[in-house]
Amino acid sequence: MEVEEEVRRIVEQVKDLHDSATSFVASSSHEELSLRKRSSAVEASITRLHSTLVSDKHLDPKLFDKLEEDLQRARCMLADGDSSSFLPSKPQGRFVRMFLGPVNVRASRKDIQLKVKEEYNSYRDRTALLFLVFPAILLTLRSYVWGGCLPAFPVQLYEAWLLFLYAGLAMRENILRANGSDIRSWWLYHHYCAMAMALVSLTWEIKGQPNCVQKQKGVRLFLQWAMMQGVAMLLQNRYQRQRLYTRIALGKAKRMDVVWGETAGVDGQLWLLCPLLFTLQGFEAYVGLQLLRTALTGVVAEWQVLICGILLVVMAVGNFINTVETLMVKSRFKAKMKRSKSRAELD
Amino acid sequence: MEVEEEVRRIVEQVKDLHDSATSFVASSSHEELSLRKRSSAVEASITRLHSTLVSDKHLDPKLFDKLEEDLQRARCMLADGDSSSFLPSKPQGRFVRMFLGPVNVRASRKDIQLKVKEEYNSYRDRTALLFLVFPAILLTLRSYVWGGCLPAFPVQLYEAWLLFLYAGLAMRENILRANGSDIRSWWLYHHYCAMAMALVSLTWEIKGQPNCVQKQKGVRLFLQWAMMQGVAMLLQNRYQRQRLYTRIALGKAKRMDVVWGETAGVDGQLWLLCPLLFTLQGFEAYVGLQLLRTALTGVVAEWQVLICGILLVVMAVGNFINTVETLMVKSRFKAKMKRSKSRAELD
Repeated sequence: MEVEEEVRRIVEQVKDLHDSATSFVASSSHEELSLRKRSSAVEASITRLHSTLVSDKHLDPKLFDKLEEDLQRARCMLADGDSSSFLPSKPQGRFVRMFLGPVNVRASRKDIQLKVKEEYNSYRDRTALLFLVFPAILLTLRSYVWGGCLPAFPVQLYEAWLLFLYAGLAMRENILRANGSDIRSWWLYHHYCAMAMALVSLTWEIKGQPNCVQKQKGVRLFLQWAMMQGVAMLLQNRYQRQRLYTRIALGKAKRMDVVWGETAGVDGQLWLLCPLLFTLQGFEAYVGLQLLRTALTGVVAEWQVLICGILLVVMAVGNFINTVETLMVKSRFKAKMKRSKSRAELD
Repeated sequence: MEVEEEVRRIVEQVKDLHDSATSFVASSSHEELSLRKRSSAVEASITRLHSTLVSDKHLDPKLFDKLEEDLQRARCMLADGDSSSFLPSKPQGRFVRMFLGPVNVRASRKDIQLKVKEEYNSYRDRTALLFLVFPAILLTLRSYVWGGCLPAFPVQLYEAWLLFLYAGLAMRENILRANGSDIRSWWLYHHYCAMAMALVSLTWEIKGQPNCVQKQKGVRLFLQWAMMQGVAMLLQNRYQRQRLYTRIALGKAKRMDVVWGETAGVDGQLWLLCPLLFTLQGFEAYVGLQLLRTALTGVVAEWQVLICGILLVVMAVGNFINTVETLMVKSRFKAKMKRSKSRAELD
């Protein structure tokens, strides 16, 4: 009978397929393991050799620079090519595990990793725009439509959006990290703080009339700070992309690197970005201190005011320290470049 | 010079490694593609053959049952063995993409998929326990310590926990789905509704004295419902695991299936679980309607009350419909089993 025959044939096919799948999985995981071992071994050798080079005092400076450059290039090739998928991955962040369970978020192919990176960049662009537009609309409506008094609902909508936004950023940056990006861990902590603040501010009653101008001073300051943040993010995104592309072209960076550190920028433009960033951080600390003052001396002793104040000050200080650190790394790198350049000219 | 020689060797090694990685990635992705094609083709044939069988009126009933069983077994082998990783995956949910970007959350190995599944089950167990304990503590403290009046902070902490919990469940179930589980989409929508409710209730001011017993009636009802929910979840988890293992042993289910549908249960225990589930759903709808009544007739016309009421009613109705549907599928399946059994006895 024809149908019977067909069913028999399908069952046969499924068995065949099952067998080939099993043997493919076995052989490829065997080969993968050996590539993993080789990658780790080579990476360890590079690190070892680098420290040998640095500690060797008798080396000719010119030769030292050349060897350093060779090693750096080898490191980039290892971390940026197909071999990158076989390098030991950083342990997955607790944050991702908490939400997703023990799922592997590491892309096995380089092209997918880069797609994730690209999407992250465009997410940041969209985000920065909303960061600018959302509070601007709220503040404009407050002045011209709502008569100086913010209603609760739109502000809470904005706070819910902030919570969602920082959760997304924290997830994405954790994933980028698992994929080999060298993002500074402060930026992740920053996002956790920002999430906590959004959550706390959701429970914070927005007071209305009478005297709402006085009572809503904290919210208003916060919205103004958010607008400045939006402008800074837009500038940063543009500069960081340019800088990353330049560094990739020079073989100085891997393509997965995120130049988040709020200081990055193409050199000339750094003089525009740096003052803006420090002003932002100062303003953030100011808003935080204002809130703390209200909480400690004011009549309305709500715990939300206290917590938000502390979080803002912590974030401002952390941002400041990390910006300065990034600038120092940058200037050290520049000095080194200058030194090797002048040496080359001397010869 | 020795160091120079070592650097040269390392650079050579990196190049070699890079080449082997590239060729491995190319060859394995070629083989993977062909396995993918074969899997899709076989899956399509099984589906086609199944409909041919069903529409064929002249087939001997006994033969029909045998062929159906063969096909079912082939389907389980395809979806449960190593070949499962090559079956076309369901498109990744928007929810996961929103938070993670275009990251692949599909496990490539069967053993990792099962680990994800196991972790999901134990997450549900821990969750159910907290679902029971957290509101119980709040209600006990309310009666014996807080003099009948819930303070705002612990309730808001509970609401933040609910938000986090449902976000985690929604993520995990979306990921299970991407990994081939046949979870009903209603349960995902249910979690989105629950997240919305937790978010809305965070902005909802918890009124204190005077008359807090009257004003906090909604919160109290909600906490009682949550405790019942905790008991139901604990029972369900136990029964569903047992049932899943039974079904796997019978070759009736794949190991990735989640028997979430709040009705599953080993047959005898279903008579305990079903009334409990329907009572829960009735109570959920009652709490929702109470909130709606307060919002529409009460003096305090807060929008949060209205939204929470609507969401609770929607969830209760959705849960009810899905429970009934699952029961119907179950009884149809049972009738079929009985039919084929009596046929076998007749022969």
